[in-house]
Amino acid sequence: MAKRQMALVGFLQAQNCSNYPASWRHPDSSGEFLTAGYYQEIAKVLEAGKFHLAFFDDRLAMPDRFGMSAAESIRNGVRVVKMDPIPILAMMGAVTRNLGLGATASTTYYEPFHIARQFSTLDHMTGGRAAWNVVTSLNDSEAANFGQDALLGHDERYDRAEEFLSVVHGHWDTWAADAIVMDKAAGVFADPAKVTALEHRGRYFNSRGPFTVPPTPQGRPVIIQAGQSGRGRDFAVKWAELIFAIFPNLDFAKRVYSETREIALAAGRDPESYRLTPAAYAIIGESQAEAEDKAALIDSLHRPIDTLALLSEALNYDFAAKGMDEAFSADELASISGLQAIRDRVVRLSGKPNPTVRDFVVHSARGTLREMAMFVGTASQVADGMEEWFLEGGCDGFVLAATHMPGAYIDFVKHVVPELQRRGVYHDDYAGPTLRENLGLSRARTAPTL
Amino acid sequence: MAKRQMALVGFLQAQNCSNYPASWRHPDSSGEFLTAGYYQEIAKVLEAGKFHLAFFDDRLAMPDRFGMSAAESIRNGVRVVKMDPIPILAMMGAVTRNLGLGATASTTYYEPFHIARQFSTLDHMTGGRAAWNVVTSLNDSEAANFGQDALLGHDERYDRAEEFLSVVHGHWDTWAADAIVMDKAAGVFADPAKVTALEHRGRYFNSRGPFTVPPTPQGRPVIIQAGQSGRGRDFAVKWAELIFAIFPNLDFAKRVYSETREIALAAGRDPESYRLTPAAYAIIGESQAEAEDKAALIDSLHRPIDTLALLSEALNYDFAAKGMDEAFSADELASISGLQAIRDRVVRLSGKPNPTVRDFVVHSARGTLREMAMFVGTASQVADGMEEWFLEGGCDGFVLAATHMPGAYIDFVKHVVPELQRRGVYHDDYAGPTLRENLGLSRARTAPTL
Repeated sequence: MAKRQMALVGFLQAQNCSNYPASWRHPDSSGEFLTAGYYQEIAKVLEAGKFHLAFFDDRLAMPDRFGMSAAESIRNGVRVVKMDPIPILAMMGAVTRNLGLGATASTTYYEPFHIARQFSTLDHMTGGRAAWNVVTSLNDSEAANFGQDALLGHDERYDRAEEFLSVVHGHWDTWAADAIVMDKAAGVFADPAKVTALEHRGRYFNSRGPFTVPPTPQGRPVIIQAGQSGRGRDFAVKWAELIFAIFPNLDFAKRVYSETREIALAAGRDPESYRLTPAAYAIIGESQAEAEDKAALIDSLHRPIDTLALLSEALNYDFAAKGMDEAFSADELASISGLQAIRDRVVRLSGKPNPTVRDFVVHSARGTLREMAMFVGTASQVADGMEEWFLEGGCDGFVLAATHMPGAYIDFVKHVVPELQRRGVYHDDYAGPTLRENLGLSRARTAPTL
Repeated sequence: MAKRQMALVGFLQAQNCSNYPASWRHPDSSGEFLTAGYYQEIAKVLEAGKFHLAFFDDRLAMPDRFGMSAAESIRNGVRVVKMDPIPILAMMGAVTRNLGLGATASTTYYEPFHIARQFSTLDHMTGGRAAWNVVTSLNDSEAANFGQDALLGHDERYDRAEEFLSVVHGHWDTWAADAIVMDKAAGVFADPAKVTALEHRGRYFNSRGPFTVPPTPQGRPVIIQAGQSGRGRDFAVKWAELIFAIFPNLDFAKRVYSETREIALAAGRDPESYRLTPAAYAIIGESQAEAEDKAALIDSLHRPIDTLALLSEALNYDFAAKGMDEAFSADELASISGLQAIRDRVVRLSGKPNPTVRDFVVHSARGTLREMAMFVGTASQVADGMEEWFLEGGCDGFVLAATHMPGAYIDFVKHVVPELQRRGVYHDDYAGPTLRENLGLSRARTAPTL
């Protein structure tokens, strides 16, 4: 059996900053985030580093829950630009050959026929490199942009997402692989017996078919999912092929990694059929001291508004409505309808059943470097840290976030990638043209039956 | 004043055939329609010919109204593949610098926030070359893929489209051109006073904002519209910057061209602020006889099912339900909810208030070469025909459809483009990087007030 190797994924944003909202304030940050060239350069850097995949997060509204206004987010540049990731991914696909290309799309505000068609088209256009990061939308701001007064409840969003995934996979599976005949002389384009209509009628969706896109180069796009609440984790082990997570430290990672394996096994899912990859920052210097200086500079760019705006956005709760040391009541905690994984993390890390606003700021660390794994040091030290997480049961690889663009990826690819390759924990080259091949995923995994 | 010159537009389809459904049966047709390379080659050919724009039509279902089954469409390849045009356009944008890039998107099955974001992102990624072809969807097959049992009525679709356009333009206009400050040292990303929320609450849509995409390189994407029914034409002169039409002959074109000018003037719209471009085929030979032989070969590829399937699709009416010589009653004609422009054309050309199925087949010529303008001959003869339409008040240019891909465009660019340029009726090179510059459209045209 080949040695187990880590997957590396670039965590991208089609916006004015990286995942780290202060990144735009970094002296080396490019301001070209509205151009194709910016994203194409990042794609080329990641492909030079043999990254398996780059994927974009998404959000369908500005962060404007804090104080119920977008003004401070706009002034401070807290993720206020948010472009459609699909045309950007295609632009990146045009200048790369092997890099996987993923985008987030919400099951709350799109139609399954549309998403099925969009991602299978992207898979055709990239020769089998597309991935879809499935999310349920988060907050009332997004709802308001799509004509709804308030977000659906947490569990109802997952009910809808379950049916959504079922419809999308259903459409993807309606053309037999050999349906297209293309016999010009006989005039037979395809065999009608091999293209069926889905005829889905369900609780949230009706979608009939026949689907209008033939099977794609990798069979179907790869599914990414980041559910980390209780319901979210069940959803992830059912559907995801790449599970994206945010873990504050290795102990936390090991616990969730092994819990996830147990949940998967209990659900009859082979844990080898998915990859669990937590987010991480890497800050690299010629010496440890230089790396720490760089980290201190990056950290100093952070402003309190970054955290408050993003916490309010992610939890769909106005953190300006409470004093810093005011505790959340049980009812208030239960009413949080956004990213419940953040709430659960704060309760777990603070050790308090009723954390305060300050506990949320400190323990979520939202929008700061401490939100996720952070490796700071020489290339060798960074590789040590990543190897430790990977070999000690914390993960199957990493979703690398950038402290600034595009420098963070350039540094990582130049210095850390060769070190990981030398140690044999990371591949020397791509296994093939499709994302499934590179992630070692089965082409033919059958969609779960609901 | 510079000499008036024609606009040229490539009429593309993200499918298994060109607009001419029989094209896939042509011996020289490429079968690579599922790959990026196919569309990128077409883009490069069109740009070599200085085409202003290439745009994709779209349909959100297979043609399956004829006999209420998709089987014959699938067997005969009657436009049964239909991919999402957006990632394909971006792929084409990555290998071109000046060619405009348009996609059709329906106001019936998408949300305005989504469309506004998608096209402004495409405009950023292509340096100001994006266009949106606004359609209202056509038939119950599309409705069924999007969870609805039947299509909205014709005029209600236009009511919805009016409000849709208003919301999209509203979002596009909510960032002042100088809103972004990007002062890293002061930490000011943008001026909150210059980014407003649309706060739209209407009959069909609520959409709040603030919009998440800053103003694009050409101010906003170019609007294409093809409404040719009575209501459709009012809509087009209100919103469109490029009006796409299908005219069977020059007399018909001249009449509609001048009617459109009158409607525009009556509505207070300067006819110089839009371009009216009908669809056309061009078939070119070394001699007239060779061109006619080519045309005869192409025509021979047509099958009756092509027309019946596409008529049933476009008119949302099952043409298998009537005998060939059975007339449509006044009630039946009034009930046609799809492309009413086709119905009106058949009544006009047949001279019969109650045309038969055969009249629809003959006079719509749907899916045949005779559906639209057709220029057959030597390069010089084709240029003569196009020049005649252009100079005699039939059009401002053409939307060139392909008889087969990519050969039809290669022939046209090689032989006819130099001839048109020699005559001075077509530009020698692009005026600038953005589509608006090349079409001679104002950057700042203000959205109509509803």
